[in-house]
Amino acid sequence: MTANPVLAEAVRGGYVENRHRGSFIVMDADGRIIASAGDVQRPVFPRSAVKSIQAMAMAETGAIGRFALDDEKLALACASHHGEDVHVAGVTRFLETIGLDATALECGAHAPTDPAAREAMRAAGGSPTALHNNCSGKHAGMLSVARTLGVDTHGYVERDHPVQKAVRSAMEHVLGAPLSEDRCGIDGCSIPTWAVPLESLALGFARMATGRDLPESLADAARRVFDAAARHPRLVAGTGHLDTVVMGAFRGRLMQKGGAEGVQCGAIRDLGWGYAIKCDDGHMEASRSMVAQLLLSFARPDDEQATLLRAFADQPLRNVRGLEVGRLRAVAEAFAASP
Amino acid sequence: MTANPVLAEAVRGGYVENRHRGSFIVMDADGRIIASAGDVQRPVFPRSAVKSIQAMAMAETGAIGRFALDDEKLALACASHHGEDVHVAGVTRFLETIGLDATALECGAHAPTDPAAREAMRAAGGSPTALHNNCSGKHAGMLSVARTLGVDTHGYVERDHPVQKAVRSAMEHVLGAPLSEDRCGIDGCSIPTWAVPLESLALGFARMATGRDLPESLADAARRVFDAAARHPRLVAGTGHLDTVVMGAFRGRLMQKGGAEGVQCGAIRDLGWGYAIKCDDGHMEASRSMVAQLLLSFARPDDEQATLLRAFADQPLRNVRGLEVGRLRAVAEAFAASP
Repeated sequence: MTANPVLAEAVRGGYVENRHRGSFIVMDADGRIIASAGDVQRPVFPRSAVKSIQAMAMAETGAIGRFALDDEKLALACASHHGEDVHVAGVTRFLETIGLDATALECGAHAPTDPAAREAMRAAGGSPTALHNNCSGKHAGMLSVARTLGVDTHGYVERDHPVQKAVRSAMEHVLGAPLSEDRCGIDGCSIPTWAVPLESLALGFARMATGRDLPESLADAARRVFDAAARHPRLVAGTGHLDTVVMGAFRGRLMQKGGAEGVQCGAIRDLGWGYAIKCDDGHMEASRSMVAQLLLSFARPDDEQATLLRAFADQPLRNVRGLEVGRLRAVAEAFAASP
Repeated sequence: MTANPVLAEAVRGGYVENRHRGSFIVMDADGRIIASAGDVQRPVFPRSAVKSIQAMAMAETGAIGRFALDDEKLALACASHHGEDVHVAGVTRFLETIGLDATALECGAHAPTDPAAREAMRAAGGSPTALHNNCSGKHAGMLSVARTLGVDTHGYVERDHPVQKAVRSAMEHVLGAPLSEDRCGIDGCSIPTWAVPLESLALGFARMATGRDLPESLADAARRVFDAAARHPRLVAGTGHLDTVVMGAFRGRLMQKGGAEGVQCGAIRDLGWGYAIKCDDGHMEASRSMVAQLLLSFARPDDEQATLLRAFADQPLRNVRGLEVGRLRAVAEAFAASP
């Protein structure tokens, strides 16, 4: 197997300590490759990077209309949120809107990702609940599908449940490709995750951005979901997170979402381009450097946006005493490659 | 640059999600290669994996004799400990023995690595101190060097301080190779770390195990330090850690030590072989799978040892609800390679 190129590296004292290989692709909605590097046909698990595409099950089943889901709820359905108060309150309202509460969630509980929220919970003697799980908004969205379908919500995370069948179907419609049973795993929040090639992911995001080759109802829903995420970027991740900061700075031009184990997906909406990145070794921070460099190279940022992106593309590494001991940085030249 | 081979991989639902490349070498004290894979000449930062070699500065300067340092203190000098009570108490005694206290430590403070110790500290309303820093035992050892040299301890972490010059000199004597100013970084605990080829590290550990090509005083000290670590494996790391568990199970046959960013070094003492591994991307758990497989392949484990090693070589990956969703496992075939 040919090795993918080094797309990011960590240097210490000016000398390379770690190398992060990976692949990426930028594609338009006609499947024309704008740029790519590495193997973009090898299926990868997109994990949370495709929550906005999974949310299309809420469009296909009619859940968005039935419950008149507003932008905040749509943003939370796409979120890997940090468990801050605003997220917990939003998901609580989402569940109320569909006539459920947190006991219906099957994502499991974990402490808030946001350090301040985690400390506040500890100081108050609280315990993590499923509402704090970074996926609780997506699960609320999936529960809205169950309610719309009129099926028992119990077991909605299982591959054979009507909810996950609807999610699978929506993904296949957007990606324009079947998902294979041979490449299905269980995600961190217990729902199925299907490995798909990076090129399919990039095409799917380009279609979401443009509506191209999607039925009108899906195209409308995709626009609404992308708008919702772009208008409420803090709901999609949390304070200081790349997805939140960068989507905010791009003021609607960008959909950007990370997924566990080094996946980054999104769309540059005005250009109509989708993109997808996988860091081979799953290193999240390295994948953030990579996507920041990808956006520097291809998203035509203004000066302010470019400054923000550079801070993610080339990050300081600090030791226990806070000394800067190195840098984690994208290999910029690797993102200049055209096919 | 040729890519190193994949030495470990993470699978989800039976399909590979992450790939961890790296290099390793097993070598005897004459420099004969027993086995290797990947680039073993490229310098890597050994980080904490060489604490036992850095501790040879305590032998060369006479600190071990002057302060009659016992096995527990020698084990702590080689440790990346978990900040459990036994570690904090031991380092406190070490500092008392050399007429100092925790205020002399320049490693910085961080919370205990051990989850139970961390929770106990939180529950008691305590704060992390430099004693809890996983490197505090090594720093106590370095302070014993300063006291023996009769120099001001202030700034003992700096590259130009007599302590770090003594540490550098000891490392060069054991490795039999000069350290290059061009490949010097600052470690997590603020001391210098020098990048050296894996083959030099493996040779150094083989020399430490056999005394070969070392002056008698260093050979004696190396034996004492290895014995101390093997007799007190819990002091070298902590509850449940590979280094602690595996050294304990090998009952003196093994010196094994991990270092940050995916480095593993050690010696199979009865065979007189040293070894060194670097995971290219710095993934610690993957490097533990790799070293467990290396020991399965080359350390001639008995059944009990092999069972333990297999549990590290092929580990379950669990999600938020504790479901096993995949495995992190060494690529066993990659460790069959001979040069």
